Amino acid sequence: MNGSSDKSAVILLSGGLDSATCLAIASGQGFRCHALSLDYGQRHRSELIAAENVARSMGAELKVINLDLRAIGGSALTDDIDVPEEESDGIPVTYVPARNTIMLSLALAWAEVLGAGDIFIGVNAVDYSGYPDCRPEFVNAYEEMANLATKAGVQGHRLIIHTPLIDLSKADIIRQGSELGVDYGLTVSCYQADEEGRACGVCDSCRIRTAGFEAAGVGDPTRYKSA
Amino acid sequence: MNGSSDKSAVILLSGGLDSATCLAIASGQGFRCHALSLDYGQRHRSELIAAENVARSMGAELKVINLDLRAIGGSALTDDIDVPEEESDGIPVTYVPARNTIMLSLALAWAEVLGAGDIFIGVNAVDYSGYPDCRPEFVNAYEEMANLATKAGVQGHRLIIHTPLIDLSKADIIRQGSELGVDYGLTVSCYQADEEGRACGVCDSCRIRTAGFEAAGVGDPTRYKSA
Repeated sequence: MNGSSDKSAVILLSGGLDSATCLAIASGQGFRCHALSLDYGQRHRSELIAAENVARSMGAELKVINLDLRAIGGSALTDDIDVPEEESDGIPVTYVPARNTIMLSLALAWAEVLGAGDIFIGVNAVDYSGYPDCRPEFVNAYEEMANLATKAGVQGHRLIIHTPLIDLSKADIIRQGSELGVDYGLTVSCYQADEEGRACGVCDSCRIRTAGFEAAGVGDPTRYKSA
Repeated sequence: MNGSSDKSAVILLSGGLDSATCLAIASGQGFRCHALSLDYGQRHRSELIAAENVARSMGAELKVINLDLRAIGGSALTDDIDVPEEESDGIPVTYVPARNTIMLSLALAWAEVLGAGDIFIGVNAVDYSGYPDCRPEFVNAYEEMANLATKAGVQGHRLIIHTPLIDLSKADIIRQGSELGVDYGLTVSCYQADEEGRACGVCDSCRIRTAGFEAAGVGDPTRYKSA
């Protein structure tokens, strides 16, 4: 789009609203987009189907890496812990230990193989749900580390971790994505969506998403279980 | 041993000489040791068998995580690239992109679930074979990042990444491990060991190991293919 389409970027794609927007932004900046999803044994399998649909809709390559985080456990999303249906204080039980650290590390490996100097991750510090690995100080420290970790870094090719959503509200993200033509009907944010990708409407993630569409003044295409 | 055996540590264990020594050092410091190995589709499967034998010999729990890095490729150890049999300049083709970054990230996740504040990794800056992710500046940057990444870090429990081998020569490592009773006959360092764990004797890793035993004045228990 801006003539730099020979530049590759790796985009972490979960199948949710934020990462779909992130992919649209990277694509809009002219990057050749390589999307990376993690099959980590998540309860909500429809997330991976959503990632496939989102990648396809934007013409991006998608690689799914199998890494069963249930072997490590410790989260309601991977372990035998119930997903809460009321607002929670502090860091919620849906936090997956070190998930963004692990996902960025896989993105880093793929970026090195591709010769890509850019990674996009849709973390957000405003509506970040209390996850420590969604904060700007984490991302900055990760970028520092990554530039010391790889052959490319040693050879002076600086890797950039882009977080285009970091300061946006959910409503701002939805507005920006809508302008870029993201089909949010393909995305799944719910922590306990059913096999068809229908949302529960009551978990933290659903509450934040629903309020976001309302605040953005954009029609909510989410399919709910009760609907 | 020093009375702190209620403290858990995660030790990255590859089945090679360095990480076996690292496990012995952590154990000697009184940590309850949780060893972590990665089944990343490595060519030399005997490495994983060695990890099991080493962990068992030291009474450590072992967790093997499946993560097929062949999906990412880019290394002679995971991809369809020949392992070199002569000394190489610069970063060798046996470098696995971001391997230590990925392994530390899994260790970090497990440490958080265990409530462990200590991770041991047997990286070595002297005989580091030119791998960027074996340098002290990488490890320091990783530790900084890790303390911003997790719930424990946010709550002020500082995580320490121990690199007890970082300044040691291969001979020093072998001497120290021998004093701690490490059975190096159980370990496999060769990049192209056969199914029984017998070493080729000619790859980078074999050359460094053989010279290490010689310089340490310790009998080399390695089984070679030609022997």
